[in-house]
Amino acid sequence: MRIGFRTAAVVVVSSAVATTLFFGSLENGNAQTRARYLPEYTADGQLLLPKDWHHWVYLGSPLTPNALNDGHANFPEFHNVYIEPESYEIYQKTGEFPEGTIFFKELQLTLPQQNPDGSRTEPSGRGYFPGPFNGADVTVKDSKRFAETNGWGYFNFNHHEPKAPMAKVKAKGECAYCHIASAKKDEVWTQFYPLLDK
Amino acid sequence: MRIGFRTAAVVVVSSAVATTLFFGSLENGNAQTRARYLPEYTADGQLLLPKDWHHWVYLGSPLTPNALNDGHANFPEFHNVYIEPESYEIYQKTGEFPEGTIFFKELQLTLPQQNPDGSRTEPSGRGYFPGPFNGADVTVKDSKRFAETNGWGYFNFNHHEPKAPMAKVKAKGECAYCHIASAKKDEVWTQFYPLLDK
Repeated sequence: MRIGFRTAAVVVVSSAVATTLFFGSLENGNAQTRARYLPEYTADGQLLLPKDWHHWVYLGSPLTPNALNDGHANFPEFHNVYIEPESYEIYQKTGEFPEGTIFFKELQLTLPQQNPDGSRTEPSGRGYFPGPFNGADVTVKDSKRFAETNGWGYFNFNHHEPKAPMAKVKAKGECAYCHIASAKKDEVWTQFYPLLDK
Repeated sequence: MRIGFRTAAVVVVSSAVATTLFFGSLENGNAQTRARYLPEYTADGQLLLPKDWHHWVYLGSPLTPNALNDGHANFPEFHNVYIEPESYEIYQKTGEFPEGTIFFKELQLTLPQQNPDGSRTEPSGRGYFPGPFNGADVTVKDSKRFAETNGWGYFNFNHHEPKAPMAKVKAKGECAYCHIASAKKDEVWTQFYPLLDK
């Protein structure tokens, strides 16, 4: 009986210690660390659609309206870009994107246009207003797996809904070349995202 | 000694149980619940700038470029809107915004224009690209405190940086009237945010 208690105590203590690794504080407003979400692949190397990106850290929304791009933007139309939060935490400390970093770009159409430039007027003014989601693109950092494209893999999960459940990596000429040529830091467009460009 | 063990076991078990209230799972990608962030006020009723909104749930970015609004948009220019995550969790279950819900609208200027409509061209196309942050507006649901404005309080934390550390509630004629007149649900512009308009 006494041994039983002792064993139980040890087990529970271990669990409590493990938990504190993930928790900073539960007080109002303090950030809490949680398990890092890492990329998941099928047996043949396709990337699974990442989970739970609406709870990731939002970085910014470049907007390329179809109406300003001959009716067919390459990425229609809002590009809502997120980073996996624990990778972001590491980036804040080190200034480098760690292996396994995932960026999620959810595309979103604008509400129907009232003007030739694609804009419309709402009570807040004339501009562009978010409409239906429209697929996603994802990049993953893995220096070994994606050595051919300088350490990042590029994936398209459709430019329409529903998003594909998995995606094959894109060839260098389809995505990576442009990131390599023009993105400010480590193939990431940090020039558009103040949180990454301090 | 035996009592000491028993006591220790009870304390640790309590701690472990408390923790599970906040944790669903630590497995890869599973959402974990955390403490709700509620509005904080000064003694004279000003709202403190909410903490940690970059870790909240992002909802969407209406964009009203200055160039399309006579050079001076009412809300310049991207309106990056977030909801406090635990309030969102409750909304998903109940379909109603609970008391204490906070919406955070961080304003963000566009990068310098190359065309009269405010747009510029980047490798992804012609459009609008996020630049410096530009202040914030916040709304808080509290049916008693803000009874005069139908249960929501409206606060401006500057339309420039740095954001104000605290803000007085706005009169009905400054913000609430427009939300009451045109926002789709409970003074919230759910028509622009698919996550709230399912």
